[in-house]
Amino acid sequence: MSKFWSPFVKDLVPYVPGEQPKLSKLVKLNTNENPYGPSPKAIAAMREELNDDLRLYPDPNGDRLKQAVADFYGVKNAQVFVGNGSDEVLAHAFHGLFQHGKPLLFPDISYSFYPVYCGLYGIQAEPLALDEQFQIRVEDYARPNGGIIFPNPNAPTGCLLALEAIEHLLQANPDTVVLVDEAYIDFGGVSAIGLVDKYPNLLVTQTLSKSRSLAGLRVGLAVGHVDLIEALERIKNSFNSYPLDRIAIAGAAAAFEDHAYFEQTCAAVIDSREQVTAGLQALGFEVLPSAANFIFARHPQHDAAGIAAALREQGVIVRHFKQARIAQFLRISIGSPEQNQALLDALAAR
Amino acid sequence: MSKFWSPFVKDLVPYVPGEQPKLSKLVKLNTNENPYGPSPKAIAAMREELNDDLRLYPDPNGDRLKQAVADFYGVKNAQVFVGNGSDEVLAHAFHGLFQHGKPLLFPDISYSFYPVYCGLYGIQAEPLALDEQFQIRVEDYARPNGGIIFPNPNAPTGCLLALEAIEHLLQANPDTVVLVDEAYIDFGGVSAIGLVDKYPNLLVTQTLSKSRSLAGLRVGLAVGHVDLIEALERIKNSFNSYPLDRIAIAGAAAAFEDHAYFEQTCAAVIDSREQVTAGLQALGFEVLPSAANFIFARHPQHDAAGIAAALREQGVIVRHFKQARIAQFLRISIGSPEQNQALLDALAAR
Repeated sequence: MSKFWSPFVKDLVPYVPGEQPKLSKLVKLNTNENPYGPSPKAIAAMREELNDDLRLYPDPNGDRLKQAVADFYGVKNAQVFVGNGSDEVLAHAFHGLFQHGKPLLFPDISYSFYPVYCGLYGIQAEPLALDEQFQIRVEDYARPNGGIIFPNPNAPTGCLLALEAIEHLLQANPDTVVLVDEAYIDFGGVSAIGLVDKYPNLLVTQTLSKSRSLAGLRVGLAVGHVDLIEALERIKNSFNSYPLDRIAIAGAAAAFEDHAYFEQTCAAVIDSREQVTAGLQALGFEVLPSAANFIFARHPQHDAAGIAAALREQGVIVRHFKQARIAQFLRISIGSPEQNQALLDALAAR
Repeated sequence: MSKFWSPFVKDLVPYVPGEQPKLSKLVKLNTNENPYGPSPKAIAAMREELNDDLRLYPDPNGDRLKQAVADFYGVKNAQVFVGNGSDEVLAHAFHGLFQHGKPLLFPDISYSFYPVYCGLYGIQAEPLALDEQFQIRVEDYARPNGGIIFPNPNAPTGCLLALEAIEHLLQANPDTVVLVDEAYIDFGGVSAIGLVDKYPNLLVTQTLSKSRSLAGLRVGLAVGHVDLIEALERIKNSFNSYPLDRIAIAGAAAAFEDHAYFEQTCAAVIDSREQVTAGLQALGFEVLPSAANFIFARHPQHDAAGIAAALREQGVIVRHFKQARIAQFLRISIGSPEQNQALLDALAAR
């Protein structure tokens, strides 16, 4: 605390990301990164940018990337917003679309950055309990609100909400924005982007950190009605004119353009997920149905924190959350076949 | 305007950056980019990052870059903050250090993003007039305030405020933060970073977009007392855990480590600036004394907007601001010797 701080700063409870260990020997299954590298075409496009033109500012609008996203989803450029990771896109959405003097609704088990954004922008947070199977109860969201947000598939559970249920939420809340955070949608769901022309209150965010294997590049996006995108653009242009550098714009656009590599790597992750699920079940774990690139699992006889500590001693890092309802679960990212086998071997050897 | 917007969004007046034309034939002297490309060592360091590890998140703290900056300036890592361009660093500073219910003081002729940030964060802006020679009148800043900010050298004038005057400001305002925005300091000034251990209310920001030739990479930084840096870190970790990508961290650190290239290119720009100044004066222009990589000039007989339009027809872009006091000035970036000659030739041919 310091007299120089704006008063709200002392009350901030910053987000704590999963550990990024500097040792490369570890089997790192704790931050839901893709086990496969980015598209070779994305790498080539980034290499093209490594020249003296880096002395020049990038395109402040990232039009090349917006075009690639618009083409991929069959929407207009003006329906696309791009930013420095989906975390930045989410921050601008909280700032520009959720400050209405009413609570923001989101699941109690969900992305733990949401209450942090609420703290940053003075928004009242109203977490709503998932049901016993960790599913969103759509009917609970029919209450006064200044907005609704949830990941789909949800994190850290991996559970998918059907598009019909999302439409129900959109119809029940025509006066507030429903933000569907699709960080993991490509591993088993259908994007709600197909609904943006039908619902002016729908904003969908995505990241290139998971299914596009570019966590190290920091690119995210939002798709929605032009009025929602305009709010994000107004905030962005009052915050940082050039959030995406030249290399990121080029690499991200090329990643979106390489359909074949994207489909192949997503399919491989999905295949591995089913194998890891079966392997964990064979070891006695209960595994929630996952549509993501991670699984959420517990063992009826063994303490989750203890398993995580034992795995770490064997060089395997998974993520354990201390939140009461999920304290007996582990969130395990799907790795390469070798990493997944190392996980199962380490668990079997305990 | 939309019912979905947070109410303040409709009142935002976003910043308008200098044009980034997509035609490469233009002599682009409008956004103060460096005529020389980045350090070859920075390019090499970025190339090293173009591999499958881009699937992994970057270091959320950017420690490699903080270390390079700390080493360069002889400060501790904990006194350094890094962000996605100095615009992002400034935004966090406005949010975290300037919300005190009192006006923020800054020069009336100054970086036009400052009042935009005030709008974004609900801070009252109190611009104070520069004197007739476009110099900051330090005595004007002895009034109640929630903070003070100014570029040094100032933009778009290029005029430098001496360190003694900055110390006077710091001593006269011990209870509020004085932010010295040193985007252009390396082209003719001495950084106030040498004062941070003496004044806990001093925050200094810099960018790699100008003297490090990396406008296309988006990296900025702040140096100050650890308490001020902590406020920025708390905001950053409540906004976006990973603002700098792997390539940016590596390239920016390498740029800071390459002292020789930095000194050589800064010296070349300074040398060109003196030549352009002499050339403009020979054409009848009045040129303000500049410590930056641009000059601010007017012609007693010719309208600035008209000159800018005529230059543009000849393929040379400079920046013209419509603000009343400076409407007869042009801000002209220092380009390569060939670009500078093209500017002077175009002006002589009018």
